[in-house]
Amino acid sequence: MRILALDSSGLVASAAIVDNDITVAEYTMNHKKTHSQTLLPMLDELKRMTELDLHTIDAIAVAAGPGSFTGLRIGSATAKGLGLALDIPIIPVPTVDALAYNLYGSDKLICPIMDARRDQVYTGLYTFRKGTDIDAGYQMVVLERQCAVDIAQLAGRINELAADTEVLFLGDGVSVYREKIAGLINVKYSFAPACCNRQRASCVAALGLTLYQKGIMETAAEHAPEYLRLSQAERERTAKKE
Amino acid sequence: MRILALDSSGLVASAAIVDNDITVAEYTMNHKKTHSQTLLPMLDELKRMTELDLHTIDAIAVAAGPGSFTGLRIGSATAKGLGLALDIPIIPVPTVDALAYNLYGSDKLICPIMDARRDQVYTGLYTFRKGTDIDAGYQMVVLERQCAVDIAQLAGRINELAADTEVLFLGDGVSVYREKIAGLINVKYSFAPACCNRQRASCVAALGLTLYQKGIMETAAEHAPEYLRLSQAERERTAKKE
Repeated sequence: MRILALDSSGLVASAAIVDNDITVAEYTMNHKKTHSQTLLPMLDELKRMTELDLHTIDAIAVAAGPGSFTGLRIGSATAKGLGLALDIPIIPVPTVDALAYNLYGSDKLICPIMDARRDQVYTGLYTFRKGTDIDAGYQMVVLERQCAVDIAQLAGRINELAADTEVLFLGDGVSVYREKIAGLINVKYSFAPACCNRQRASCVAALGLTLYQKGIMETAAEHAPEYLRLSQAERERTAKKE
Repeated sequence: MRILALDSSGLVASAAIVDNDITVAEYTMNHKKTHSQTLLPMLDELKRMTELDLHTIDAIAVAAGPGSFTGLRIGSATAKGLGLALDIPIIPVPTVDALAYNLYGSDKLICPIMDARRDQVYTGLYTFRKGTDIDAGYQMVVLERQCAVDIAQLAGRINELAADTEVLFLGDGVSVYREKIAGLINVKYSFAPACCNRQRASCVAALGLTLYQKGIMETAAEHAPEYLRLSQAERERTAKKE
């Protein structure tokens, strides 16, 4: 099973080609260029370097939201175009879930936070549990589904947890809310390091593979990103109407 | 602190630019091309895409062995050349340690295995423990330093552990020794998925940063890879002399 994975939901642009349990190639960029300047050239670079025949791809996994509205549209449009042309399914992977997958196998409470502006974050709560068989892999358990909430509300929810809980934060919201977190959180916490604290397309692919095995996929025509909130333009139009 | 990181110790070639806790760019390739064909073009691509001025780099972190002899020499030669030209230190990161860093924060027993041929693996045993402060990060604990051992010997060592231990294997040795592991291991085990089971330069950089902070670095002139074993040519010469 060969998956092409894309994540342009946040500041990061990332593309990967994954064959079952092997990442054949991954390219991730967290630079000031916009995704319209990076994502397709990166994909083209991977295709060239791995001598990839696009027709050998079985499915496209894409970080399907929430996230930056423009970023999500670039990722989804790219996935839809490729999916239509190659006639292969799209696996829509919840952005925050894929971010949490960076900390695969951890028994800690994993809390990705993506800056959603206006004191809000896109977040969720996750952990990993091993299956019952001696050689079973770890399943990611979604304790709190991805959502948009105030950072204070998230901190309140975390403080309700057992005192011996250890929370691991990651995501681009960390640099924005680091001081607020320090002031608000009562349980043990820390921040993931550079190798596992941002979007990576191989995480989208690896989690996408587990979703695909559960039959979670859609056609390119069906696929649309999940914004979770109204865009600024939509909010302003609604406000004017009221 | 800006680190340029390289890993060409195994089948994977990987390069990354990391600014403290942010991976600015990472490019990883696990394709049949040789590292002499991939590593420098990948680095050049990253430099171009991130508009990187090489003179802004503070140190070079390199996977310093064990691993493929040719791969290590390509990685170390590149690091030495850049280090000499830019007059910056090299942080030699033990290859197996950097591989284990993929599973940051896990309290499981982490066992990277790299195929070293002749029924041997380059391996080590690791876990992560949180520091004492409420906001302390996780320290990687080296339970068994990286070494070259027979796969049966490694399995024996793992079977001596507590019965409730969960071992997480990763690395290119998994595909080679998966069946032997299933036959030899008595404790709970599993294999890491595609997003965190191979060398990644951002892991070399993130672990390298912690080594740098402890003063572990060397000049480009001093740097040499750590092979752990004699090369095939050296073994054959020794055998002829005996």
